[in-house]
Amino acid sequence: MKSISILGSTGSIGCNTLKVVDFLGEFRVVALGAGKNVEKLAEQIRRFKPEIVAVENGICAENLLRELRKTNTKAPQIETGETGLVSVATRDEAEIVVSATVGAVGFVPTLRALEAGKTVALANKETLVMAGELMTKTARENKTEILPVDSEHNAIHQCLRGEKRSEVKRLILTASGGPFRAKSKTEIENATRAEALNHPKWKMGDKITIDSATLMNKGLEVIEACWLFDFSAEEISVIVHPESIVHSLIELVDGSIIAQLGATDMRHAIQYALTFPDRKPSNLAPLDLATLSQLNFEEPDFDKFPCLALAYRALKTGGTLPAAMNAANEIAVQAFLDDKIRLSEIPKIIEIVMNQHRTQAVNSLEIVQEADKKARIEAEKILEVKCYAS
Amino acid sequence: MKSISILGSTGSIGCNTLKVVDFLGEFRVVALGAGKNVEKLAEQIRRFKPEIVAVENGICAENLLRELRKTNTKAPQIETGETGLVSVATRDEAEIVVSATVGAVGFVPTLRALEAGKTVALANKETLVMAGELMTKTARENKTEILPVDSEHNAIHQCLRGEKRSEVKRLILTASGGPFRAKSKTEIENATRAEALNHPKWKMGDKITIDSATLMNKGLEVIEACWLFDFSAEEISVIVHPESIVHSLIELVDGSIIAQLGATDMRHAIQYALTFPDRKPSNLAPLDLATLSQLNFEEPDFDKFPCLALAYRALKTGGTLPAAMNAANEIAVQAFLDDKIRLSEIPKIIEIVMNQHRTQAVNSLEIVQEADKKARIEAEKILEVKCYAS
Repeated sequence: MKSISILGSTGSIGCNTLKVVDFLGEFRVVALGAGKNVEKLAEQIRRFKPEIVAVENGICAENLLRELRKTNTKAPQIETGETGLVSVATRDEAEIVVSATVGAVGFVPTLRALEAGKTVALANKETLVMAGELMTKTARENKTEILPVDSEHNAIHQCLRGEKRSEVKRLILTASGGPFRAKSKTEIENATRAEALNHPKWKMGDKITIDSATLMNKGLEVIEACWLFDFSAEEISVIVHPESIVHSLIELVDGSIIAQLGATDMRHAIQYALTFPDRKPSNLAPLDLATLSQLNFEEPDFDKFPCLALAYRALKTGGTLPAAMNAANEIAVQAFLDDKIRLSEIPKIIEIVMNQHRTQAVNSLEIVQEADKKARIEAEKILEVKCYAS
Repeated sequence: MKSISILGSTGSIGCNTLKVVDFLGEFRVVALGAGKNVEKLAEQIRRFKPEIVAVENGICAENLLRELRKTNTKAPQIETGETGLVSVATRDEAEIVVSATVGAVGFVPTLRALEAGKTVALANKETLVMAGELMTKTARENKTEILPVDSEHNAIHQCLRGEKRSEVKRLILTASGGPFRAKSKTEIENATRAEALNHPKWKMGDKITIDSATLMNKGLEVIEACWLFDFSAEEISVIVHPESIVHSLIELVDGSIIAQLGATDMRHAIQYALTFPDRKPSNLAPLDLATLSQLNFEEPDFDKFPCLALAYRALKTGGTLPAAMNAANEIAVQAFLDDKIRLSEIPKIIEIVMNQHRTQAVNSLEIVQEADKKARIEAEKILEVKCYAS
């Protein structure tokens, strides 16, 4: 039985990971890291009996203890904040760490997991966007692996199984196009929070759903793919595929294309990462192409979705610019979710932060953290003064 | 430089193989086997200077010599008939033999090539349909490989590269559906020769084009896939995909599907087989999914296309029945091409031959040859007396 730690256990990927663990019946859950959702975490503790858990802060820890007492559940060791998540990520027994927190909070714990030689099943794309070079270098130095849980990167990982790097010409990430694929620029401009959160294909957390609506999610994925698979910005394309059945493709030097297809259920990708290099039977409904009947493809519209172009720009420049872009995006998305700005203001805020950012090489964790922090402050300032034309 | 022999060099696959050889510039053509098309063969001799060629008979040999004299081309060694094709297939220097003759004529030469330890790039599907067990056993015993050139099997071969047999649940062969996919049973019944030869996607020889119109081609491919990849009839599905862009797919035990896509140009599959296990850059236009825009899938209609069901039945019964079915099909297709019968009579003739056939285990070449011969005689008889309701 393999032991597993989960960072972000109460989120969408975390809950699905526990469903897969439950179905496979061959993993022991030793540590869970969550945020504020102590009711869900208490349930998970009752079911999976981890040795240690982490929550956001002391108040959350008290609330968790109260929840556990309600059902006379024995409390595990409880830690808080980033230190707590690091404890979860580096727990001795854990062989696999599922990194599924949202945003920059998973960055340090994931790095520590790699330093501790854990296999990391990575759903937190911001980690690679902020410091892909550092992360992949750390994985190499500690002879461990980063296995992608994002459906697109998971698909690319599957497509690359039998191929040599030198014979792969291009990665092609599919994008559902989000809820505004067929909308006009004006409609996107005036989109409400509810419209932006209504993703046509995937049920996910709020932040990633907004990123999908702006296509920033695809931009972050392009950067993620660059680091995971060692391809340049020029070697990674995006194609819009509204059905989200083809999860991604690779093009070989001889013109052949290999694609991975599957149902739009994250449990497929999670199971693949947990059982790799083996494949195990799944309890999910198989894909029926004849019933699906039709798959569509179109070029992404960089004009309607400027976030995608910003991400390519950040990747081409490199250094700390992707981290700054990511930080500005997190602030802007939160402002949109808080009804403070319109959807079309998100790329404007990010662009100003990127223009102001002085890019440095990523030599250390500290440089990334500083770039992240500075970009957040800049973004907050811009939000306050609304110094962009809207 | 690798040396290569081609059986069926003047046919569609043969000519495309020589185009690929020309482009790659890393093969020496040592032997060519053709039929009656001595003009084309003479051209090929001028261009590729093989040491030996085979033609159908003595008259063809004389005609070939006359053609060569016209341009003062030095004549290679010329042999005739099956013996000639065997000489081409077993030529000492040849490392790869491309088996691309049409129908049963390629059977013995291909077997001899495998016995001589040659790598066989196989486009002649009848060979595996007639005696898949014998062929694959011979390949194993002589520590050589059969590499499929058929686009579907070539696709499956590519999809399987990184996978373990035990983790593959199912092969899914795509079928364009042929020219009568969207036609009614009556329209198919009354189809003319010209309509049947008008394939919507692939430009191929006459026999295979008619097989595509009846879906017998897909049936033969199911049997071929069974032997090439060691899957049972129950583990091989067919899905209709009119665009012929997804060349085939595999389903893994975890529900993931891997597909191979490419332009509808046989040179892709030929180049893959010639360069395997490497991939080399190609001069063919890459596939542009966004321009293609839409891919469609539907279940095959076993009622409108009874040949597909007949092939599944032959595969499930096994032994000499697939060889008998294949022989009856060759006779019936030729009768259709000669305007002697209607398209809908093809499956009827095959079914009667299959019902009359006494299936035996395939222990030797002779048993297969006898089953093939007997079924041809039966089919001819049925054609004479027209003993089927039409």
